[in-house]
Amino acid sequence: MKIYGDRRSGNCLKIKYLADLMGLTYEWVEVEVLSGQCREAEFLKLNAFGQVPVIELDDGRCLAQSNAILTFLARGSAYYPADGYEAAKVDEWLYWEQYSHEPYVAVSIFQMLFLGRAADEREGWRVTRAEAALDLMNDRLSGRDWLAGHRFTIADISLFAYTGRCHLGGFDLGKRPHVEAWLQRVAAVLRLDEAAYYPMSRA
Amino acid sequence: MKIYGDRRSGNCLKIKYLADLMGLTYEWVEVEVLSGQCREAEFLKLNAFGQVPVIELDDGRCLAQSNAILTFLARGSAYYPADGYEAAKVDEWLYWEQYSHEPYVAVSIFQMLFLGRAADEREGWRVTRAEAALDLMNDRLSGRDWLAGHRFTIADISLFAYTGRCHLGGFDLGKRPHVEAWLQRVAAVLRLDEAAYYPMSRA
Repeated sequence: MKIYGDRRSGNCLKIKYLADLMGLTYEWVEVEVLSGQCREAEFLKLNAFGQVPVIELDDGRCLAQSNAILTFLARGSAYYPADGYEAAKVDEWLYWEQYSHEPYVAVSIFQMLFLGRAADEREGWRVTRAEAALDLMNDRLSGRDWLAGHRFTIADISLFAYTGRCHLGGFDLGKRPHVEAWLQRVAAVLRLDEAAYYPMSRA
Repeated sequence: MKIYGDRRSGNCLKIKYLADLMGLTYEWVEVEVLSGQCREAEFLKLNAFGQVPVIELDDGRCLAQSNAILTFLARGSAYYPADGYEAAKVDEWLYWEQYSHEPYVAVSIFQMLFLGRAADEREGWRVTRAEAALDLMNDRLSGRDWLAGHRFTIADISLFAYTGRCHLGGFDLGKRPHVEAWLQRVAAVLRLDEAAYYPMSRA
């Protein structure tokens, strides 16, 4: 399998996290989001949506959309429930991530990390919604180890990708202890160094 | 099953379309989005995300996120493939709908239909992205009957909900004949009256 992705993109890192966790063999093909490569004819053959990440299976078939890829790879494993309702409760978080978290948290990160904006140049309405998304996660994780059901799933990987990098978008988890503790749990499962995600050691 | 939804919301209509197509028995519980009911404690017990649609199963379990609900209801039916890769190609469109179509097309509809804005009061950046999403669909549907694979699936229902109402957001499909023809195909499957979706009879 090939994974086409930009190493600075949380949506792409999601796929790497899961593939590494499952011990899948893959070749990472670095695609720079800002280079415009995603809009070129050769790339559009892989993914007409013109976005990374994309995976290319050994038989040449391709698949796009980060959370669709996570679901595809995890199906049949411990990271995505076999039961239809339990699976749907994971899907709930995956859709919430793309609609109510990523456009606010990740786009703020993009504006600072890729476009070089300062924290006070972020859009106010976007910051407000990002803060609300992080608050909702903190409420959810009060008294719970994982987002969906009682086990670690791809819902945790999906939300970890940008929540664990939210400081790069100017966000602070200091008043969200349940999110901080969950980040540490997820990082332990993924065997990630502290430096690879939200720097809780700052205090 | 109960379906909690606002009849003016495409995200809620998706669930009604599929439930009617599958002949499911349900009670529709009307929830007015603008009334603030979704943020009240009683509703948040059904869905902590504070959004419609939500379904409540006969055993009391609930499920939110329109495309997660579609997937849950369609699993095992002809409308969602059993094969993992084919299912993932449907998921691709469901995620694309929520990330690259709904925030532009549906939010424009919301601003005009619910908030009473005129077409020229829409946000320019949002309109540009909505037009791009509709163009991408037209390209995709050139020479194809359905969005994902070779059969009608929940990808078609999901994208139909707002594309079939895009005129309410000030959009015109006149130069997108493949989308117009696809709307008619989907409406025929769903047995919807013309009045219920994009008015192609205008010419």
